[in-house]
Amino acid sequence: MEQKKQVKSIPPKADDLSEWYTQVCLRAQLVDYTPVRGCIALRPYGFALWELIQAEFDRRFKATGHSNAYFPLLIPESLLVKEAEHVEGFAPEVAWVTQGGGEELTERLAIRPTSEAIIGTMYSRWIQSHRDLPVLINQWCNVMRWEKATRPFLRTLEFLWQEGHTVHASEAEAAEEVQRMLEIYREVAEDVLALPVIKGRKSENEKFAGAAATYAIEALMPDGKALQAGTSHEFGQNFSKAYDITFTDVDEKVKHAYTTSWGVSWRIIGGLIMAHGDDRGLVLPPAVAPHQVVIVPIVKTGDETVMPAARRLRDELSETARVLLDDREQSPGWKYSEWEMRGVPLRIEIGPRDVAQNSVTVVRRDLQSKTAVPLGEIAARVPALLEEIRRSMYERASAWRAAHTIEAAGHDEFVEALKRQDGFVLAPWCERAECELDIKAETSAVTRVIAGPAQPGQTCAYCGKPARVTAYFARSY
Amino acid sequence: MEQKKQVKSIPPKADDLSEWYTQVCLRAQLVDYTPVRGCIALRPYGFALWELIQAEFDRRFKATGHSNAYFPLLIPESLLVKEAEHVEGFAPEVAWVTQGGGEELTERLAIRPTSEAIIGTMYSRWIQSHRDLPVLINQWCNVMRWEKATRPFLRTLEFLWQEGHTVHASEAEAAEEVQRMLEIYREVAEDVLALPVIKGRKSENEKFAGAAATYAIEALMPDGKALQAGTSHEFGQNFSKAYDITFTDVDEKVKHAYTTSWGVSWRIIGGLIMAHGDDRGLVLPPAVAPHQVVIVPIVKTGDETVMPAARRLRDELSETARVLLDDREQSPGWKYSEWEMRGVPLRIEIGPRDVAQNSVTVVRRDLQSKTAVPLGEIAARVPALLEEIRRSMYERASAWRAAHTIEAAGHDEFVEALKRQDGFVLAPWCERAECELDIKAETSAVTRVIAGPAQPGQTCAYCGKPARVTAYFARSY
Repeated sequence: MEQKKQVKSIPPKADDLSEWYTQVCLRAQLVDYTPVRGCIALRPYGFALWELIQAEFDRRFKATGHSNAYFPLLIPESLLVKEAEHVEGFAPEVAWVTQGGGEELTERLAIRPTSEAIIGTMYSRWIQSHRDLPVLINQWCNVMRWEKATRPFLRTLEFLWQEGHTVHASEAEAAEEVQRMLEIYREVAEDVLALPVIKGRKSENEKFAGAAATYAIEALMPDGKALQAGTSHEFGQNFSKAYDITFTDVDEKVKHAYTTSWGVSWRIIGGLIMAHGDDRGLVLPPAVAPHQVVIVPIVKTGDETVMPAARRLRDELSETARVLLDDREQSPGWKYSEWEMRGVPLRIEIGPRDVAQNSVTVVRRDLQSKTAVPLGEIAARVPALLEEIRRSMYERASAWRAAHTIEAAGHDEFVEALKRQDGFVLAPWCERAECELDIKAETSAVTRVIAGPAQPGQTCAYCGKPARVTAYFARSY
Repeated sequence: MEQKKQVKSIPPKADDLSEWYTQVCLRAQLVDYTPVRGCIALRPYGFALWELIQAEFDRRFKATGHSNAYFPLLIPESLLVKEAEHVEGFAPEVAWVTQGGGEELTERLAIRPTSEAIIGTMYSRWIQSHRDLPVLINQWCNVMRWEKATRPFLRTLEFLWQEGHTVHASEAEAAEEVQRMLEIYREVAEDVLALPVIKGRKSENEKFAGAAATYAIEALMPDGKALQAGTSHEFGQNFSKAYDITFTDVDEKVKHAYTTSWGVSWRIIGGLIMAHGDDRGLVLPPAVAPHQVVIVPIVKTGDETVMPAARRLRDELSETARVLLDDREQSPGWKYSEWEMRGVPLRIEIGPRDVAQNSVTVVRRDLQSKTAVPLGEIAARVPALLEEIRRSMYERASAWRAAHTIEAAGHDEFVEALKRQDGFVLAPWCERAECELDIKAETSAVTRVIAGPAQPGQTCAYCGKPARVTAYFARSY
């Protein structure tokens, strides 16, 4: 009864993805709305998920030679405006501090929308010689972009992210760095979060303000829209010229360095909620689930066997997994429903009969499959089960994406496919900015990433001019 | 030569603590000044130190049942003003956002100086029943207080900290929580950072704006000033009434809850720099040193034995300690000087003769003592050496504090002791706010914490009225 009530309150995912998404975010207690427009509170369960995702990225950043640091939240307007394209891209979204300590400030201070301006300024002080390069620094922090419409994780005024900022002596090294970090993003998305992504360069229209080239990973959501889940930018010498980042090279000449930046935000949580969730709520990838296993004891009046067995099981499983024994007073059914809503990968039910038979019932969140497992085997099987869940989630999401990715070569086929709004459309494209704007005006879709060069003789699926590349098109978040 | 040059550039600690401190912060590459007034950049070495300190606190917070979460940076003015004393205390230090997305905002938004107002607002939504209590949440974040004079770590406009915010059904539980967290602060300060502290309640004048009672840990700095290194506040029902945090108790009555908050900031880094450093620079407590051991190879032309031995040693030591092999091209002397400035607890020098004799030279940063240690024994001895360094640093700091803490009962003795500005003065006190202000006006000192109740018949060391407590007095940072 209680279970029914709880499940009933969220709409089926297929009927209303947007309302389903909002309800899951709230009901799983990941986030709550706040009285601050467009800003969410990340509740303990949501933060634990974010901490685990952070740890996966952070470990890989450090393994590839990067260090964390922290730069000021506020950026004086005079610094922000130094790179023309950059300020043009971000100025409309800036929140400005104009008063401090009871006084009007003589210069407005931007709350960082991203930190190229302040980090570039510091780098120009720290770098003198080729011996100081490369500089490989990452920052985990909050940033702010004054958006109109907002949704938890996907688009909020304030959000948490990481921004890597690196400096190199040569263009080739910078280009290598950009690809290295993009590959780390792909690896965490796919191998950890079970979120299949496509990887590639952005078009001129879609690239970061101030970048020479932007690369991204893009995931496909159940409504056929693409979600940009991580970006990695080559800046060439744009920022080193704007912020005077120079070094004396081995040949004794003073040169402008090559810089990059790359970022992933809590938006990727929105991606995994939408990609994996179902009508019962969240389905979390095991590697980042705050509780990987929940043990629900089924205690009958007078029974004294279940709780001791449940506690032993918890202690045993804690060696290899994050386990919660839910010993609250609510009914087992209520707990099943709650932990399904909150996406715990494995549920273990243990009642008096199970104890008597030296067995437990194991329920997989992704498939809702139930298996009886001997008590003596469960500890050994949990790690393999968690890995099996990850693989199965990834395969399911990949199959879905494959079924929603079509190739289109002719104009009508291309336009109709985009208008169906049913996933990625891969097509030869002329790479002209105007053509992309025309496609957007007609279909709401844009390029997501460039897949590769076009075949000789191919023509643009939209405008018919010679094709230079093939590109993935979709509407996007 | 190079070593001499580098050491020469900082003044002796005893001559000019303030300039010594600034130079060490910069030369050890912990921080740098930025073009943003009063805001520092925490460089990779400083951030690594902060990360290790965070981990020590965070582990203890989690072990005592606390979870991390994240709340908005911006607090609407209408929320901030709900608790009268609180807003009065913080309003003069607030930075205000007044423009966003190209428009003037209808309400000013404060950058959080602390988060009671926004967190209290969320708690009023999340708490309905006694079953929802206690709520034990911590947040690691940046905050901003618009100060006039600033110094790295000790006082900056923006700083990094943690703020715990808890809610309890009873006053007794809240009081217990406040002491539990204060004890964790003492434990990390003393047992991890080797920083002896006194622990106790603050006077009415010195308590947090809006608190019923504030408790603190205070460390003594080499200039005889006290440094508040962590605070823990009982709010009684002040904030639950201001922010409407109520719950239905087991007796079915709706009651206001009892709340607490407690915080430690990166200021504690300033404390350990001043307490432990010497004329050669930083001396880091081993538990939080980014590199606990640095291996400096002494390579002569033609020698091919040293580098392989140094690498083997690094790999071996990496099992139990954070080890850096400094294989840069600079001279050994330059490296000794650099790692002394940066406070690495143990240096291992290894040259051709050492390799031939199967031995290395180990230098302790705290004592500058050199010992020859057989190569085969070094891995087993490093953990014990690091612990010995911690104990020795703590004992040295404790002895120094003991020598700079005096008891004063009579008026002249008390005033003279405070005017010497040479450490803590422990004295019977009447506990009157006016008396404390008079003491401050005459001596620049205030109470740091209340040590305990006065003996019957004791009189206030300053005003001669009946003493209620004994208190530690000192000037402070």
